[in-house]
Amino acid sequence: MSAVLDAIEVKKAGGTLDDDAIEAVVSAFTAGDVPDYQMSALLMAIFLRGMAYDETLALTRTMADSGPRYSFPGCVDKHSTGGVGDKVTLTSMPIVAACGAPVAKLSGRGLGVTGGTIDKFEAIPGFSMALSDEQFRRQVDTVGIAIGEAGVLAPADKAIYALRDTTGTVDSMPLIGSSIVSKKAATGAGHLLYDVKRGTGAFMKTTEQARELAQLLVRLSESMGIRASALITDMDAPLGSAVGNALEVRESVAFLRGEPTRDDLAEVACDVAVRLLELTGAEAPREAVDRALGSGAAHDKLTELVRAQGGDVDRLEDLAVSAHVREVSAPAGGFVARFDALGIGRASLALGAGRQRKDDAIDPGAGVELLVAVGDEVAAGQPVARLYGEREVARAVELAEGALELTPEPVTRSGHVLGSL
Amino acid sequence: MSAVLDAIEVKKAGGTLDDDAIEAVVSAFTAGDVPDYQMSALLMAIFLRGMAYDETLALTRTMADSGPRYSFPGCVDKHSTGGVGDKVTLTSMPIVAACGAPVAKLSGRGLGVTGGTIDKFEAIPGFSMALSDEQFRRQVDTVGIAIGEAGVLAPADKAIYALRDTTGTVDSMPLIGSSIVSKKAATGAGHLLYDVKRGTGAFMKTTEQARELAQLLVRLSESMGIRASALITDMDAPLGSAVGNALEVRESVAFLRGEPTRDDLAEVACDVAVRLLELTGAEAPREAVDRALGSGAAHDKLTELVRAQGGDVDRLEDLAVSAHVREVSAPAGGFVARFDALGIGRASLALGAGRQRKDDAIDPGAGVELLVAVGDEVAAGQPVARLYGEREVARAVELAEGALELTPEPVTRSGHVLGSL
Repeated sequence: MSAVLDAIEVKKAGGTLDDDAIEAVVSAFTAGDVPDYQMSALLMAIFLRGMAYDETLALTRTMADSGPRYSFPGCVDKHSTGGVGDKVTLTSMPIVAACGAPVAKLSGRGLGVTGGTIDKFEAIPGFSMALSDEQFRRQVDTVGIAIGEAGVLAPADKAIYALRDTTGTVDSMPLIGSSIVSKKAATGAGHLLYDVKRGTGAFMKTTEQARELAQLLVRLSESMGIRASALITDMDAPLGSAVGNALEVRESVAFLRGEPTRDDLAEVACDVAVRLLELTGAEAPREAVDRALGSGAAHDKLTELVRAQGGDVDRLEDLAVSAHVREVSAPAGGFVARFDALGIGRASLALGAGRQRKDDAIDPGAGVELLVAVGDEVAAGQPVARLYGEREVARAVELAEGALELTPEPVTRSGHVLGSL
Repeated sequence: MSAVLDAIEVKKAGGTLDDDAIEAVVSAFTAGDVPDYQMSALLMAIFLRGMAYDETLALTRTMADSGPRYSFPGCVDKHSTGGVGDKVTLTSMPIVAACGAPVAKLSGRGLGVTGGTIDKFEAIPGFSMALSDEQFRRQVDTVGIAIGEAGVLAPADKAIYALRDTTGTVDSMPLIGSSIVSKKAATGAGHLLYDVKRGTGAFMKTTEQARELAQLLVRLSESMGIRASALITDMDAPLGSAVGNALEVRESVAFLRGEPTRDDLAEVACDVAVRLLELTGAEAPREAVDRALGSGAAHDKLTELVRAQGGDVDRLEDLAVSAHVREVSAPAGGFVARFDALGIGRASLALGAGRQRKDDAIDPGAGVELLVAVGDEVAAGQPVARLYGEREVARAVELAEGALELTPEPVTRSGHVLGSL
């Protein structure tokens, strides 16, 4: 019997696979020796029967080892499970680099179809991810921060994920956890902070799910020899006020320059930076972060990074966005109870800020700027959001209007970091 | 979202699919519009979550309707879940036809790779299954019994089964039940007796499993408008003494001619015939069966059937078997505790009586003749089995020797019909 049929029998019966069995199946599948229909049957059995921790770790290790593995043991990196207006990398990475913790941030190609970190940096004219391994290493040493695009990291994960995506087997904790950690382990940073989002705009809908995933990510990372911790942060509303590539860079630059920006952005960016510095054993990390921001050192570090990777630092300070602007107004007076992250994310996508299909070209200047936040009091007819871009504008307006929920009673705003471990 | 992805979500969550959902998935899959890897994920979800009765019935109906459907409402048929030395069709069908219940037995092509009913009849020189629909119907009317090969019955079942066979999703009650009944419903007999085997040589290992399957088969059949009942019969040892195509025809002819044959064959063949006659509402079926055997009418009916389908009736009476014969002897004295059906089935397969691969040519004269039965006392060195055929003889000897289990204590023989419903 083949390795995959053996594995199916074990999982069907609720048993556990040993390391060799997992390695045999994953290697054979990646080599093209297991038909998709057998792998998808195994994935469904895993989905429904679950995986023990040791199985999940073996899967993580095997997938990490299926492609190139980098090694930056002295460096830090962060990973976000994905959200709307998520500019935590743009803000927290320059902060920690300014505090002396070297940042080696490698992303694999083709991971995710919505605007990711790569798209955000590429909204800066001239900015290039195309560094050789040698250039990347040298920049980490000299500038203290580099953002690069690796080839395909963890190709086994890529192949398995493509199958999961079309067979209803995405939302499984062990499969999600092993997928994330296998890729991060391949990038090789020695210290990792996971920003696990929960809310309407995130994959995890509840804080309990987010905590479960965070625990798994940290445990798997530690087992792979990476120092790791996690924050659970809110994604019921977008983070900050800007959604869209150039818009988010603009807001991040403003924040690093010390201009007034939204509290939630400051809270999450600083907490992520502090936690990362803690992982490296830095003394008084909170004070170091405050100093890097107050002195302008974090802003300088972003400028240095952009210059090192060919970006136009003059244009960085006042990045162009789409000239096609449309405002959305409140239909009535009241307090903002919700400005739904999922709805705003979809509006931004309709405007061209992300990819609806894999080959779509994005419009870096497209997106949504929120003019009010949860808890704000608004008058009828007051502008609540500004839409940038010229694609599906009518649909974006409808989505943005639908995302706003008003209530006659005052609303208390809550913190955006919901937990940590 | 597609019908199959919707269905995956429902089954993942432990929900039930309605008739339309099942019809949509099966039609799309049969039309080639659902990739195998999605169907296999759904099948695994069904395997692990189970199916409610109404879902199983909808699947049965949809698969039955996926190809040609015949209609013989006045006729009887039987179905065996498969066993070693299973000559119940060869014996019981001529009996019921002799009792006046018309038999319309249609088999689909390519169902099963071990010697089935078709192979057994084709061991009779000249016997042909290639009847036109018109010839088949006429023979049912004039002779009262016809055995024919239909095209592919229930092609949806064939496609789904091929996928189940390679993804570890065969042994699921609702999937087994719907597979069997969809094909039987397509053959169209109005009265059906299921002979559900249980034991080492059968798919169902325990009487409880066999009873569960029997209940499902009868319930599904009744829901499809077929009068049905079931027997649960023993398959720890082969039925009768002959295993192999010509050998089984020989034993069946001897039994119908009234010559001494093994009790278990008489018990099962007669009980199947009685139950079928009961389903048709016949009066005093047990007496009718005894009369058909005692008068030679059942034997005459088999002769009539063979003649009608081109078989050589003279050679039927003393069918040739392989001239390559090898005896297996008892290694010690004692009582026969077991003569394992699975081991003897494998020995027979090794000798060439069945197909190890789909395209293998079988040797109709190959097989095993058991010279002793459970409970018999044997002396050391006494011949216990005769092997016919010239392929893998050494392996067959080993398998036959391994199938025999002796014990110093007398063994009580038990009945072979273990239950009915």
